[in-house]
Amino acid sequence: MDLNAISTPAALVDVRRMQANIRRMQDHMHGLGVALRPHAKTAKCLRVTQLQNDAGAKGITVSTLKEAEQFFAGGIHDITYAVGMAPSKLPRALGLLRRGCTLRILTDSVASARSIAEFCRNSKTIFDVLIEIDTDGHRSGVSPEAGELLDIAAALAAGGANVHGVLTHAGSSYDLSGRAALEALAERERSLCVRAAERLRQAGYACPVVSVGSTPTAVCAKNLADVTEVRAGVYVFFDLVMRSIGVCAVDDIALSVLTTVIGHQKEKGWAIADAGWMAMSRDRGRVRHGADFGYGQICSPDGTPIPGYIVSDANQEHGIISLRGGLDAKIAERFPVGSLLRILPNHACATGAQFPEYHALTGDEAEVWPRFYGW
Amino acid sequence: MDLNAISTPAALVDVRRMQANIRRMQDHMHGLGVALRPHAKTAKCLRVTQLQNDAGAKGITVSTLKEAEQFFAGGIHDITYAVGMAPSKLPRALGLLRRGCTLRILTDSVASARSIAEFCRNSKTIFDVLIEIDTDGHRSGVSPEAGELLDIAAALAAGGANVHGVLTHAGSSYDLSGRAALEALAERERSLCVRAAERLRQAGYACPVVSVGSTPTAVCAKNLADVTEVRAGVYVFFDLVMRSIGVCAVDDIALSVLTTVIGHQKEKGWAIADAGWMAMSRDRGRVRHGADFGYGQICSPDGTPIPGYIVSDANQEHGIISLRGGLDAKIAERFPVGSLLRILPNHACATGAQFPEYHALTGDEAEVWPRFYGW
Repeated sequence: MDLNAISTPAALVDVRRMQANIRRMQDHMHGLGVALRPHAKTAKCLRVTQLQNDAGAKGITVSTLKEAEQFFAGGIHDITYAVGMAPSKLPRALGLLRRGCTLRILTDSVASARSIAEFCRNSKTIFDVLIEIDTDGHRSGVSPEAGELLDIAAALAAGGANVHGVLTHAGSSYDLSGRAALEALAERERSLCVRAAERLRQAGYACPVVSVGSTPTAVCAKNLADVTEVRAGVYVFFDLVMRSIGVCAVDDIALSVLTTVIGHQKEKGWAIADAGWMAMSRDRGRVRHGADFGYGQICSPDGTPIPGYIVSDANQEHGIISLRGGLDAKIAERFPVGSLLRILPNHACATGAQFPEYHALTGDEAEVWPRFYGW
Repeated sequence: MDLNAISTPAALVDVRRMQANIRRMQDHMHGLGVALRPHAKTAKCLRVTQLQNDAGAKGITVSTLKEAEQFFAGGIHDITYAVGMAPSKLPRALGLLRRGCTLRILTDSVASARSIAEFCRNSKTIFDVLIEIDTDGHRSGVSPEAGELLDIAAALAAGGANVHGVLTHAGSSYDLSGRAALEALAERERSLCVRAAERLRQAGYACPVVSVGSTPTAVCAKNLADVTEVRAGVYVFFDLVMRSIGVCAVDDIALSVLTTVIGHQKEKGWAIADAGWMAMSRDRGRVRHGADFGYGQICSPDGTPIPGYIVSDANQEHGIISLRGGLDAKIAERFPVGSLLRILPNHACATGAQFPEYHALTGDEAEVWPRFYGW
């Protein structure tokens, strides 16, 4: 594959690594007896989703209704929209239902449940609704032991909405490191979400779906009894954050940014490249946890990391490459003007989102895979 | 204007404020006797650029060749590509020249100048080339006193490239605060760039262009003698960073993100909204300088700031709104599910880039203005 044919900066996908990531997660979920519903928000790419489904995944998760519309138009019909429903978006969701999409929506409050119920009544529609459960204090969701859980279910049922199940996301996994802590969080995510489902069932709701997931907890889960599906997104590409958390190796990272060196400040030990924050995103990864790769880890054009060299600072279309904790006085000889480099990203979801398409490297070829965008 | 008709999150442009920003900068440059060449990288929007040119601006600056191609297709023919030229991009630049674009390119090294010169010889083309000058140690450029300045000019001329002038960007202005420091930097930017032009002229190069600029130095410049043009980008929208630097008022900020409240964690004092980092970008603004607005300042739907309320944390499609330094136990009553809010961004260039289009508010109407994207 001649990378010189690709205009930089460009988002490269190592398809062999990605397929290995897809296979490993699918096998793990199969072994635990649960369905895998990949979160399409990471890649936002129909081809990636098709490969996940080919490997055995069941449907997808999305983070916006635009994604749902785009993937539905691309032939994916089983979609969970895993962000709390805004009342104003119900007509748009109804449009998907009426076109034949199996769409599940989410709520975590009586106020939102009432608006969904009222909309169901007025539009003579039955939405399948998941109730979001807070299992780690990370973000949204209702406590599994809260009285409000049953109030939400009652509000939904009053309008004819279907209490389809419970859903949680242990996003605090991004602040942990190491298997032991993540195994414990995965079990907490599982047990508290199952507990919420049990309470709903005791109250008379069928609640067939128990949906959990984040990539770190999915990778580390050892027991998913009574869970029906796992959602995970970033595992498809992995990134430096996942490496720092301890759930992948550097060699598993399937997304990188191809860049060209455009200049130097020799006395500072800087090479300047054409991948700035517009290409890498402003995501600084796990810098709060001491894992500081600046805006990314420098690799040779074949993807081999060059230890110590990072994108130490970035402007919109300029990345400053330097040796961490040192000064390479010969950086202009090491990375001459015109040389190609690859950069491993801190956060694949954020970096991928900066690009209209991926260049998918499959052995000797590069295919262009378009990416979805906007709301 | 009924904002409820706009699907959230959405990027709103207050056209009245933007027009005032355009007019103020244009008048200032006119008063100083220099041309204004707006940097289109901020808005990446043909309509915005047309309004800047209607107000008297001369041509545009771009940060990528894709922008140059897109703006050229939209009728803008006078373009400076103000990022150091990668040798591999010369054929693409030549394509623009051959289609009739007046395109200037940039170099700051003998290595790059030689590749441009060789390309000129081989393609029988004369590129107009600007030499980038480092006036503040911020990023790229050659020192105005360096021997290399004349070596670069000689390397260009040897291949038949035209030494069209000098260009500098005092990007360190983003790390300053207050008029006095910025006036001093503006004078440094001017005087060192003029000095570089004088050295080139003494060596026999006509060097007609002396191009300087950053929004903070442009706003604060009091004397631009011997400068021919100023480049500035973010002034068209302004943002919280510019406010913190001291070169605009909050009421000048013309870009905001419209968002819908989707839930709460009442005991934490959180409202959850549908503008996460995908909408706001990961840019944390001047947090290093103590100006911490999280991911943005909350405003009422009409754009009035609500003091103390910020987007204190963000996930991909979730923004956590809270009271800075406090806990609003009644946040669910203040911002109920379904309510609309506006968010002022830290960095307009980064936030705008997350959206496929702007909703431009002109009194009672909202026009959709598409935005450019990719490389």
